[in-house]
Amino acid sequence: MEAEIEFIPEGTITSPEGFFAGATYAGINKKARNKPDLGVLFSEAPCVAAALFTTNRIKAAPVVLSQRRLEQGRALAVVVNSGCANACTGGRGIKAAARMAELTAEGIGVSPEDVLVASTGVIGVPLPMKRIASAIEQVVLSRDGGHELARAMMTTDTFAKEIAVKVRVGSSEFSIGGVAKGSGMIHPDLATLLCFLTTDAAVEKDFLQEALKKAVDISFNMVSIDGDTSPNDMVLLLANGRAGGSAPSAFEQGLERVCIYLARCIAADGEGANRLIEVTVSGAHNLAEARLAARTIVSSSLVKAAVHGADPNWGRIMAALGRSGVEVVESKTDLYIGGIPVMKAGAPLPFNKRGIIKLLEGKEISISLNLNLGSGSATAWGCDLSEEYVTINSRYMT
Amino acid sequence: MEAEIEFIPEGTITSPEGFFAGATYAGINKKARNKPDLGVLFSEAPCVAAALFTTNRIKAAPVVLSQRRLEQGRALAVVVNSGCANACTGGRGIKAAARMAELTAEGIGVSPEDVLVASTGVIGVPLPMKRIASAIEQVVLSRDGGHELARAMMTTDTFAKEIAVKVRVGSSEFSIGGVAKGSGMIHPDLATLLCFLTTDAAVEKDFLQEALKKAVDISFNMVSIDGDTSPNDMVLLLANGRAGGSAPSAFEQGLERVCIYLARCIAADGEGANRLIEVTVSGAHNLAEARLAARTIVSSSLVKAAVHGADPNWGRIMAALGRSGVEVVESKTDLYIGGIPVMKAGAPLPFNKRGIIKLLEGKEISISLNLNLGSGSATAWGCDLSEEYVTINSRYMT
Repeated sequence: MEAEIEFIPEGTITSPEGFFAGATYAGINKKARNKPDLGVLFSEAPCVAAALFTTNRIKAAPVVLSQRRLEQGRALAVVVNSGCANACTGGRGIKAAARMAELTAEGIGVSPEDVLVASTGVIGVPLPMKRIASAIEQVVLSRDGGHELARAMMTTDTFAKEIAVKVRVGSSEFSIGGVAKGSGMIHPDLATLLCFLTTDAAVEKDFLQEALKKAVDISFNMVSIDGDTSPNDMVLLLANGRAGGSAPSAFEQGLERVCIYLARCIAADGEGANRLIEVTVSGAHNLAEARLAARTIVSSSLVKAAVHGADPNWGRIMAALGRSGVEVVESKTDLYIGGIPVMKAGAPLPFNKRGIIKLLEGKEISISLNLNLGSGSATAWGCDLSEEYVTINSRYMT
Repeated sequence: MEAEIEFIPEGTITSPEGFFAGATYAGINKKARNKPDLGVLFSEAPCVAAALFTTNRIKAAPVVLSQRRLEQGRALAVVVNSGCANACTGGRGIKAAARMAELTAEGIGVSPEDVLVASTGVIGVPLPMKRIASAIEQVVLSRDGGHELARAMMTTDTFAKEIAVKVRVGSSEFSIGGVAKGSGMIHPDLATLLCFLTTDAAVEKDFLQEALKKAVDISFNMVSIDGDTSPNDMVLLLANGRAGGSAPSAFEQGLERVCIYLARCIAADGEGANRLIEVTVSGAHNLAEARLAARTIVSSSLVKAAVHGADPNWGRIMAALGRSGVEVVESKTDLYIGGIPVMKAGAPLPFNKRGIIKLLEGKEISISLNLNLGSGSATAWGCDLSEEYVTINSRYMT
């Protein structure tokens, strides 16, 4: 049965039934005065929960805590702050994360064990617990609080990344919502800093985890902003079953749609970025090689800088392909920029330089390669590297 | 027996006996008007030759040609150009590289088989063979032409990278000289873009190759400018035996000294760079893990941008360490910036922020970590990431 998937206008994480959210300004990082920095997500019905966490060997305290709590496979609430990562903070950091959960649990009247914690911001600085304690009391939860929560997660993001879709299949109907925070320290292998997903579909725990892994593999894990990964990466998916049972394949489709949308938003809003870069590699020896090649190219500083300057320096794409380590036969490789062939079977083609520059000046740049070796195909997303990226990241703390 | 190694004032690749070099302006890339772009290195006595080439799967035509010629283990001359990489140029590129060798061989009266070819510059553009043919005739070889050759190799380099040392051990005395070209598309595992080394020591071919590999592993392979590797990377070492036999360990020491000196020059002169970053990781589980950790940290865009802004955001160093994949126990890890401890046993220490900023404002920044797990230790070099890097690389071709 074909699933119908439609975007919900101004959809967010509280679009699915039974989810509430709210946020407030706690003053965690004094730089961010004009937006909330502390938020809470809550489901009135118990949720089956799935999650993926950073693969970085340095794990932030909220990651350690939430990972442990999720072993029970259920959750009722998430508390999130921006402005401080609570990472590299030793034993004191773990205590602070637990206290954040406790304060949130008291406020909504649930058990602290059912509250997950997420943080993003500067590493190596302790959380200002007094400010957080008094701010949590100010958080008002509502059915339309998703957008405020999305804003509370933002650090150098220039816009809130949020979406919700309605999925219809046969007589069943359910929604999936998501918010994400991206911008910097973003690289494949669990690429988003923070992402929360909600659904009112009724889903089994094991299926939920598997569906999440599949969707993340072709979305967030195919995004790179700067090659750096964060100790705080976390993707959470909460399913409260309010809309009743769902067709598994329709659920997977809806979830993929949501994750790819958010992944593209993260790429387009990379720190200092002006352009979204989409790299598709086809004809690779296998899927793993296609993924690796696409991710390597989209991560190349030189490719990103060339796109920034709309410089048709396509040799850099080939150099990045070559160092990815995947099987390449130069004399079989075709390269296209915005659909225009610039290299065929390993030999450069004469191309309209003005035309390519025009394409590179757009908001979305597509680069595609056919390795003509097999059937592996994959797409990765990234952004241009601008002077602004350096400026932002050379003054993050000072 | 202890070897004495001393720097030769204004030493270069023609400092060892029997080597001649020269360069001229061929107009290969019209951007570079004020410096030579085509050079020749020649030894009056046949050389034993060793080399390391790019591991990039996309190999430039001069790499393919020189790799093939070096199978005979000897060489008499090298011709090098900047301004055009002669990479991704198909069969026409191979013919052009062979023609460059032929023209050079005619000029100096040797066999084309004894001439190696190296190129650096824009990828995907054919060599202007007419201009090269008439320019090669203009090259005048001399015993003090090393510096002109070093200049002919430069692209975005801001200074020529060259050195020579005199090695004395017992009654034997010999010299080793080197020139390198760096700046962009520089990353471990592929040595440097171009480096030529000469010596008048008499050395066996197998020993020469082994000594070169050892020296490159702790020098050029521990440098990263931007994570991108080039199809043109090539390190050549020519030994003409003019100074007679040498003590093997003294030769290795001298060669390491030359390579580390050039590697540090490359790091310090990274595109747009203002600061040399030296990262030392000790106490790693083993040598391979120490190397990987040091290279990952020195390659991190976020660490590099923080150093650029003298921002004491040390959490990024820990995040890069964590993603390197090496064994790390957070609660055992110590971190120092310029010798000042900022984290001990995984917990942040109060530190003098002004003092660290002052250190970070210097020309050379030292970052060191002790993982306290084993005896693996390694040092890597890189540079800060500046707005200027982006500007240079967004307008390379246009």
